[in-house]
Amino acid sequence: MSQKEVNGSSHRGKVLTLETMNQNVRQVEYAVRGPMVLRAVQIEEELKKGVKKPFTEVIKANVGDAHAMGQKPITFIRQVLALCAYPALLEDDKFPEDAKLRARRILDGCGGQSIGAYSASQGIECIRKDVASYIEKRDGGIPSNHENIYLSTGASDAIVTMLKLLICGEGRTRTGVMISIPQYPLYSAALTELQGVQINYYLDEDKCWGLDVGELRRSLTAAREHCNPRALCIINPGNPTGQVQSRQCIEDVIRFAKEEGLLLMADEVYQDNVYAEGCVFHSFKKVLFEMGPEFSSVVELVSFHSTSKCYMGECGFRGGYMEVVNLDPEVKAQLTKLVSVRLCSPVSGQALMDVVVNPPQPGEPSYATFTKERAAVLADLAEKAKLTEESFNNVPGFHCNPVQGAMYTFPRITIPQKAIDQAKAAGQAPDQMYCMKLLETTGICLVPGSGFGQREGTFHFRMTILPPKEKLKYVLEKIAEFNAQFLQDYS
Amino acid sequence: MSQKEVNGSSHRGKVLTLETMNQNVRQVEYAVRGPMVLRAVQIEEELKKGVKKPFTEVIKANVGDAHAMGQKPITFIRQVLALCAYPALLEDDKFPEDAKLRARRILDGCGGQSIGAYSASQGIECIRKDVASYIEKRDGGIPSNHENIYLSTGASDAIVTMLKLLICGEGRTRTGVMISIPQYPLYSAALTELQGVQINYYLDEDKCWGLDVGELRRSLTAAREHCNPRALCIINPGNPTGQVQSRQCIEDVIRFAKEEGLLLMADEVYQDNVYAEGCVFHSFKKVLFEMGPEFSSVVELVSFHSTSKCYMGECGFRGGYMEVVNLDPEVKAQLTKLVSVRLCSPVSGQALMDVVVNPPQPGEPSYATFTKERAAVLADLAEKAKLTEESFNNVPGFHCNPVQGAMYTFPRITIPQKAIDQAKAAGQAPDQMYCMKLLETTGICLVPGSGFGQREGTFHFRMTILPPKEKLKYVLEKIAEFNAQFLQDYS
Ligand SMILES: Cc1ncc(COP(=O)(O)O)c(C=O)c1O
Ligand SMILES: Cc1ncc(COP(=O)(O)O)c(C=O)c1O
Repeated sequence: MSQKEVNGSSHRGKVLTLETMNQNVRQVEYAVRGPMVLRAVQIEEELKKGVKKPFTEVIKANVGDAHAMGQKPITFIRQVLALCAYPALLEDDKFPEDAKLRARRILDGCGGQSIGAYSASQGIECIRKDVASYIEKRDGGIPSNHENIYLSTGASDAIVTMLKLLICGEGRTRTGVMISIPQYPLYSAALTELQGVQINYYLDEDKCWGLDVGELRRSLTAAREHCNPRALCIINPGNPTGQVQSRQCIEDVIRFAKEEGLLLMADEVYQDNVYAEGCVFHSFKKVLFEMGPEFSSVVELVSFHSTSKCYMGECGFRGGYMEVVNLDPEVKAQLTKLVSVRLCSPVSGQALMDVVVNPPQPGEPSYATFTKERAAVLADLAEKAKLTEESFNNVPGFHCNPVQGAMYTFPRITIPQKAIDQAKAAGQAPDQMYCMKLLETTGICLVPGSGFGQREGTFHFRMTILPPKEKLKYVLEKIAEFNAQFLQDYS
Repeated sequence: MSQKEVNGSSHRGKVLTLETMNQNVRQVEYAVRGPMVLRAVQIEEELKKGVKKPFTEVIKANVGDAHAMGQKPITFIRQVLALCAYPALLEDDKFPEDAKLRARRILDGCGGQSIGAYSASQGIECIRKDVASYIEKRDGGIPSNHENIYLSTGASDAIVTMLKLLICGEGRTRTGVMISIPQYPLYSAALTELQGVQINYYLDEDKCWGLDVGELRRSLTAAREHCNPRALCIINPGNPTGQVQSRQCIEDVIRFAKEEGLLLMADEVYQDNVYAEGCVFHSFKKVLFEMGPEFSSVVELVSFHSTSKCYMGECGFRGGYMEVVNLDPEVKAQLTKLVSVRLCSPVSGQALMDVVVNPPQPGEPSYATFTKERAAVLADLAEKAKLTEESFNNVPGFHCNPVQGAMYTFPRITIPQKAIDQAKAAGQAPDQMYCMKLLETTGICLVPGSGFGQREGTFHFRMTILPPKEKLKYVLEKIAEFNAQFLQDYS
């Protein structure tokens, strides 16, 4: 029996339609690149075509994309990458010796000494060793084994891979995964796609987006009624919320994970992005091991890093790694098998990660420049973090927590009832309407808080602090102006 | 109620074990990087430690990894990549003008003129335009729209993404996907992971691994009893089988897909790898459009390409694209959303793809070198294809079809009953035992035919033809010697 006979119209209709596609994929939402961005791209086209607007440029403050905002690449990183790509340059006097040495070392780790060869599925061994050394140094000597390092296609890839490994079961035994609200929407998107159960725990906006174990427990207890919670995800420093977790808080979380039998996923891609006085980045790995063997030999922890953020902001190369701690060796073998199906992560991204984890050392020719460039980026970000907080807290109706770390601000905004009613009538989230109007009026593209999750009845938006200082000032002013007008229009 | 109370031992056992992990992932098999390769890596370690072996080197003929086998990168490609990575080189006289122009054009397409910026989720627009022009030219002017091009993280990523979009339903309505046997095991692995139903159709070894529509129909009819077949995958030129499909055969397949309401997935990553006299690569897109609007306006086709194969062999950069034809616009929007969750494919891989689809033209400074280098690689491969076929057909017990295209040979081998019995007693596939013994005796790493699928009772292995000629000759000799000994041992 041919399909034609089964369904008379099938040879004319599409095989793949909204109705017949994977409905899990259909349900995925991803606001960071959602309708706001599509509209922003349209407006850019319109501007190009000469359409008159009250602004001349679209400013995409929706994504944490440093280079797109004008940040310059770190010289040493790019020298090593150029040398790896075109080894004839190894003979060129213009390149410093340490960059050449580094490129040679990476090339020696590649099949046929070419970054055009597939690497081992887990990543190039010498790079994984450098990652392990970096972690050891970062964590004050706590050992790290390169066999536990997996290089990945950005942190996104590693996070999705771990979730894929975890999620199974049906109905009440379906795997639940705890994520913070507000969250980075990769998590909700991946959970939807993989049909894991999303378990929300709320960060406390009034305590600077702090994480409270009482709230974890509330959320877990409620979730146990309908699914099987097995993992707890933390983003530290936080996206979109910008908080940096205290050591005490991390300890509490680890104790909670142990008591409750949860695997910890620590998203630490912003580990170098800490700005606020008194805030320090503590890795989950370090705290776990400092809590003693009772914890460090038991709690399963996976932590994620990326080349996309910190001072380098090298998003396009899609470099990243995860370190797995206390993972069952048989599961590790399964993980290795799983990543091998896609052969390997981009080798240029692996090479970039190598430079990040093993930067030039004192005495080496590139040390001074590297250190200066890195410090300049981080100082600039710190200044912009402060500027943004202060500026937004002067806007009537805004409440903005300090941007302690990461690259975003997530102010609470006031939307008048009249505007809420109008948005609801149009089937729109009120903060979506706010952001869309802002885009149309000023060319500034933000992401509405509803794309990250927020407490019912509150409204926010996320903005990166990445634009160059003068542009950032302009953006902050324009948002304040727009907000005043908006409040007036809907009062 | 805490997990401790639910299950007394949970705070001491692992959250994630073989039993509690995603069982779909557990069932995935991926022979190309399976047990053979793990053992090969161990043997390499042993050699390094000075363990005596009857050989001095492991030769990994298991993967189509050109650079790892010593193939040199194409100069122009790497010049452009180095310029993109380190734009200070744009001032350097040593780089030809056309490489600089190209790098500038790519950088102009990047956010902040940096390949360190995230690109649009679908890929950089000017590169997608170059891909579309390439396809148009390749296909004799049949139009291609850059809106239908998705740049991907290797072809692997695009293939898995399409399968993910397609697969849904439960029980008898579960999506079935037809794949050739022997197949490239990415397909079976992805189907297992996504719980699609794998529908095998067998290539005809006696007709040079030809594809016969009768066999497609048999396989489809049988599958309709237990699932909902919705897609048909073809690899042309074939991996692991090396056949190049005739135009007639492609037409037949397209007609079949239309009649039966199947979406076509054409894996054309070896489109430049055609060696045999009289064989030509025909793209599915071209044939589809030449069959007239009755077909070209109806049949949903997705075709895949990659930077990893052909003359460039740039596997490490993880570049690729897919072109979607006749996809429902709403589904296309869903596809775009889906790929946006992982932000973008590696921009250096995108840049590489740009050079591949838009190589230097006559009159440009790099034209001569580029053309010479490309021709040399392809001529060398053609020679090795011939050499391999001839050599294997002289081995008693081997039957080897011509390597018309791609990069592999897949000879049928004879395994004596005694060896079969011994393998079965050890719970091993007989060809796995054969390959493992070959590895231990000679250091040559192949993939057993059972990793790709083969007709019951037949045995094969896959070997790449990529080793440099002298090494390839050595490999061919060693395999012949080993085979003679093996037949003798088990006679
Ligand atoms: C918290 C967090 N995790 C992961 C990612 C993924 O980054 P990538 O895949 O570029 O490494 C991001 C990107 O913005 C992020 O903010
Ligand atoms: C037929 C076929 N398709 C797809 C791929 C995937 O290649 P990549 O992901 O490197 O583009 C391969 C790799 O060997 C292949 O042989």
